[in-house]
Amino acid sequence: MADALRGPGEHKPAMTDHLVLFMPSGKRGRFPTDTPVLDAARQLGVHVESVCGGRGICGRCQVDVQEGVFAKHGITSSNAHISPFGGNEVRYAEKRDLKEGRRLSCSAKILGDLVIDIPQDAVVNAQVVRKDSDGRVIERNPAIQLCYVELEEPDMHKPLGDLDRLLLEIEADWGYKSLQVDTYLLGQVQKILRTGDWKVTAVIHEPFQGEPATLVALYPGLKNEAYGIACDIGSTTIAMHLSSLLSGRTLASSGTSNPQIRFGEDLMSRVSYVMMNPDGREAMTKAVREALNGLIDKVCQQGEIERTDILDAVFVGNPIMHHLFLGIDPTELGGAPFALAVSGAVNIKSSEIDLPLNPGARIYMIPCIAGHVGADAAAATLTEGPHRQDEMMLLVDVGTNAEIVLGNATRTVAASSPTGPAFEGAEISCGQRAAPGAIERIRIDPVTFEPRYRVIGIEPWSDEPGFEEQAQKVGVNGVCGSGIIEIIAEMYLAGIITEDGVINGDLAAQSPRIINTGRTFSYLLKDGEPRLMVSQTDVRAIQLAKAALYAGVKLLMDKQGIDHVDRIGLAGAFGSFIDPKYALVLGLVPDCDLAHVKAVGNAAGTGARMALLNRDHRREIELTVKRIEKIETALESKFQEHFVNAMAFPNKADPFPRLAEVVTLPPRSMDTDKADGIEPGAARRRGGRRNRS
Amino acid sequence: MADALRGPGEHKPAMTDHLVLFMPSGKRGRFPTDTPVLDAARQLGVHVESVCGGRGICGRCQVDVQEGVFAKHGITSSNAHISPFGGNEVRYAEKRDLKEGRRLSCSAKILGDLVIDIPQDAVVNAQVVRKDSDGRVIERNPAIQLCYVELEEPDMHKPLGDLDRLLLEIEADWGYKSLQVDTYLLGQVQKILRTGDWKVTAVIHEPFQGEPATLVALYPGLKNEAYGIACDIGSTTIAMHLSSLLSGRTLASSGTSNPQIRFGEDLMSRVSYVMMNPDGREAMTKAVREALNGLIDKVCQQGEIERTDILDAVFVGNPIMHHLFLGIDPTELGGAPFALAVSGAVNIKSSEIDLPLNPGARIYMIPCIAGHVGADAAAATLTEGPHRQDEMMLLVDVGTNAEIVLGNATRTVAASSPTGPAFEGAEISCGQRAAPGAIERIRIDPVTFEPRYRVIGIEPWSDEPGFEEQAQKVGVNGVCGSGIIEIIAEMYLAGIITEDGVINGDLAAQSPRIINTGRTFSYLLKDGEPRLMVSQTDVRAIQLAKAALYAGVKLLMDKQGIDHVDRIGLAGAFGSFIDPKYALVLGLVPDCDLAHVKAVGNAAGTGARMALLNRDHRREIELTVKRIEKIETALESKFQEHFVNAMAFPNKADPFPRLAEVVTLPPRSMDTDKADGIEPGAARRRGGRRNRS
Repeated sequence: MADALRGPGEHKPAMTDHLVLFMPSGKRGRFPTDTPVLDAARQLGVHVESVCGGRGICGRCQVDVQEGVFAKHGITSSNAHISPFGGNEVRYAEKRDLKEGRRLSCSAKILGDLVIDIPQDAVVNAQVVRKDSDGRVIERNPAIQLCYVELEEPDMHKPLGDLDRLLLEIEADWGYKSLQVDTYLLGQVQKILRTGDWKVTAVIHEPFQGEPATLVALYPGLKNEAYGIACDIGSTTIAMHLSSLLSGRTLASSGTSNPQIRFGEDLMSRVSYVMMNPDGREAMTKAVREALNGLIDKVCQQGEIERTDILDAVFVGNPIMHHLFLGIDPTELGGAPFALAVSGAVNIKSSEIDLPLNPGARIYMIPCIAGHVGADAAAATLTEGPHRQDEMMLLVDVGTNAEIVLGNATRTVAASSPTGPAFEGAEISCGQRAAPGAIERIRIDPVTFEPRYRVIGIEPWSDEPGFEEQAQKVGVNGVCGSGIIEIIAEMYLAGIITEDGVINGDLAAQSPRIINTGRTFSYLLKDGEPRLMVSQTDVRAIQLAKAALYAGVKLLMDKQGIDHVDRIGLAGAFGSFIDPKYALVLGLVPDCDLAHVKAVGNAAGTGARMALLNRDHRREIELTVKRIEKIETALESKFQEHFVNAMAFPNKADPFPRLAEVVTLPPRSMDTDKADGIEPGAARRRGGRRNRS
Repeated sequence: MADALRGPGEHKPAMTDHLVLFMPSGKRGRFPTDTPVLDAARQLGVHVESVCGGRGICGRCQVDVQEGVFAKHGITSSNAHISPFGGNEVRYAEKRDLKEGRRLSCSAKILGDLVIDIPQDAVVNAQVVRKDSDGRVIERNPAIQLCYVELEEPDMHKPLGDLDRLLLEIEADWGYKSLQVDTYLLGQVQKILRTGDWKVTAVIHEPFQGEPATLVALYPGLKNEAYGIACDIGSTTIAMHLSSLLSGRTLASSGTSNPQIRFGEDLMSRVSYVMMNPDGREAMTKAVREALNGLIDKVCQQGEIERTDILDAVFVGNPIMHHLFLGIDPTELGGAPFALAVSGAVNIKSSEIDLPLNPGARIYMIPCIAGHVGADAAAATLTEGPHRQDEMMLLVDVGTNAEIVLGNATRTVAASSPTGPAFEGAEISCGQRAAPGAIERIRIDPVTFEPRYRVIGIEPWSDEPGFEEQAQKVGVNGVCGSGIIEIIAEMYLAGIITEDGVINGDLAAQSPRIINTGRTFSYLLKDGEPRLMVSQTDVRAIQLAKAALYAGVKLLMDKQGIDHVDRIGLAGAFGSFIDPKYALVLGLVPDCDLAHVKAVGNAAGTGARMALLNRDHRREIELTVKRIEKIETALESKFQEHFVNAMAFPNKADPFPRLAEVVTLPPRSMDTDKADGIEPGAARRRGGRRNRS
């Protein structure tokens, strides 16, 4: 808590001043008698919301006073450390609900030492920090501020324009100088002022503290809510969250598939479509914006708000999604040197890109890291924060390209690796997208080679009662990305695949599951309609993909001069569903304590939400991206070497000393003794023999 | 020249430094050896253009070296005060025309004491000051700057976006930090960079020195020209000028009638139209913008440029024109308290108001002074500069409302006065707008009462040979504003009208021109088709109009505590065409030395051009408007008194001691001797009798 001990900003504290401690941040300072609690909070950088500017009508600035005997409802106390419950508070409490013990920090004044608690409940006052569904705390400091002001009526003696008088009032009450004004407001300001009887709520967009601010919207009367959306535009799926900018609460979340899929399944085929079709870029931009508009309708409906209530929005996506969303031709991203049109953060108006929200709504796009490492990777970095940690963290988002970030507070490096679409189920004979009917979990008996599996949309495993009945309805149509990882890993663990990735044809004699399909063998996962097989080609595709991923990771480890990582975060849908254990078995990622390998979910979407709710996070990721060293795998001579070495199961390049602690490894081909080594002990011994590369 | 003696900005001059004097500004300073002349000029605030940033390719920074023996074309001199004609200059002179003695100030370096002349010719180098057709000098310092930069090609090792690299290059070469970027450029930047082979000219909009600047346009290669338009939107006429932002030269001027006339002849009828018709505001906004678009086409055609070459535009107009142009409902301006929606300067994009120029073009609107004293009055103030003078200047722009500014460097006051449309020829039986066929000049023989007149579009006077022939073609259809002033004044000078404004029926016996029209008499100006008469009602209308104007002026004189003014400027079309003498005779304006009463032409349009060519003039008028004290005539009790007193010819309120020096005044009614006083001497005696009020 030592670093939270700060003196107040402007006032030089005297020892006679009173000590005030704000919880949960722990920030503290000394303030003279009669300082309003709100002012003290602001001087310490403790964010307490206030829409009405201390008039005691919005109720947004409520706090709990935890210490100090104080007076309320007329009961005075001689040793009160806070001012008596005053006029504004009485009026507010009469009209609205003010919980026992709660004070309006704009009205309550410091009279002695105090501990002030910023309430965390979402009902009225989750203004400051908000624990998310994933337990994440996002401190609020949005780029949008609501400012209630009261104007005098126009006066012939002072013929200043109504807008000019409004701006002077905002400056006087809220300190915003030289405000810009959105052009559309020029024609509306007079009517709004008169509708509100000269009381209005101004919406100010200030990208960063002290930067030029803009009046972007104006409401008659007191407007006590503002909303924002955070959105991750994936090539396959688009996910959107609707949040209150005042409480931080997530009101609604929704997702949809990216309609650009009809122009091309993977990223490169979409770039090709643009290159082949004169209107291709335009068509894809239109498609994604339409999908976004549909999603916005959906979250607004769920959240029971109007589109015009949305005042801010943050979007992330990989570079090609990023460019197509903004209406930028992604052709340059289709070939070396993979030049982004823009890599820095983008600040625009929603009205400029056919996304009707509030007419003054702003859009912020998190910066891209490099031509193949996009705003989504940057957002995931913001979420997981390798740059905030001492431990060396590897962050991997697997898609057609794997986006890889490796670093800590000292140094962060990033690269992308051309994994191809195999991990997403494409180019795999039995592969399909993650959807009902797709196999997502698989176990293979190492003796009988019989599989059991679990299907999306069907609760029981395939060998459990009730499965068949549901399978008739849902269907079992293919294997999704995470399922493919498991089946290849299980085939390896069962000894069906050798460490060189060959399906062992010798086993065909032992099991009807191993089928001769000409020059090579396949594994029969499921008979019937459709028949699902894993072919030698499928195994090779996964080998290539995982070798590419691993080679990229290894290259970054080389740059950092390290041979192991402390933590691994697996981001994205793929990362969420694969079992980290199997990622280690296949050698997708380097050796790591399994307890420190975790799926980080839609880290990109969470990062977007962080940037939405706190502009300091925008600055943080902008500065971080500038500091990240970008490694272009194609230019690194070692990449090919790492790639070749990483083809085996697990990697020859970098065996996993800790892997054997987790799973039972299959017999080593070099051991020739193929029946040996099923029990953990043997595997552990083998692991012990290997040296770090 | 003493006040022009300034030390250079950054370098602390040593006595060993060389003295450099820039002409014609006279600014001087001392600079060390090898300082480029361009740098010296910039340090002294001498504006020398440079598009290419000192690469010696744009040729915009040419200067004449007037002193100092110097070397050129290989001829060296031992006592040269300026560096030899160098590589960049040789290359430029080979490709383009470089006059003998001219140097590129980016290349030429100071070696000794120098006198540098900034060339004034428009061919290449009228960069600094530009004498206008009206002799006005506008120093150039536009809000738009062209910045040529050369980039490196993208490099996989540095995966910064192309736009980001461009911004870094502009910052490095031109010093613009944290540039904003117009959104439309995001999708174009890559193509433009590649078309220009990584050499481009960036267009930067910087409203004021040091304020946040924006990249608003980008051209491949070197772009050596930029244009702007300055426009005065009058209720009757719209006037537009096209100027080069780099040379200051006016390339084309054009005008058209305001199509809003079909919704209402005068301002108040247009406000009424808006109040009566739900789509009225929209229709009038559309009409004026269409007219502006037509004018833009016209000046572009004349100037032989494309619309997209226009990067900046300044508009002025009275408050109602101002609001309708911006799409603001002017209803509030139709009644007390005459609240403007916005009075301050307006900065918007042309794309926001359906005025297609360059997609990044900016629009600047000069501030309005008050609800009835608009941006046109402010622009006229900027042009005539009462706030820059010690003398007390009266600036009058007569329209449906007279906009009146009175002041000097110490204090400036402003008001509007409801003159009504009489001065514009409306509400006058024989009145018409100034157009071919309108009588504009009139003389009445004081003995015979016979008129002679001159008609717009007809060269000879009505009593000269050739008039009748041309009159048959052109027609003689009415009397325009300036003609009405003259005929009323001449009727008064001829004794047809008494000082109370009564057409003297006694004279009907002397002349068939004086006609009994019932209870009152009329003066027959022209018989035939159409028959043009000046009725008693017409005289009353002019009396009311001039009394309103004069009362407004008098009120401002009261505020200033003065009983005479040093200078009078009559602005606008009306002011351009009336003879100041007749304005004095009728008592439109207060007593003033006739030599100091002048028509200032379209001072509003000139002010717009000043603001277009020099952003410092924008700041100047913004600060001046803030300082101007606004007087609301309707709230001043003395107004009515001044008004009543000003009804007579000349004014009883404030007789004109100097008037009799100029014209022969008619017999005073109080003198009863009606035949007396035709000769100047008598009038002078009479004038001498009067005392100042």
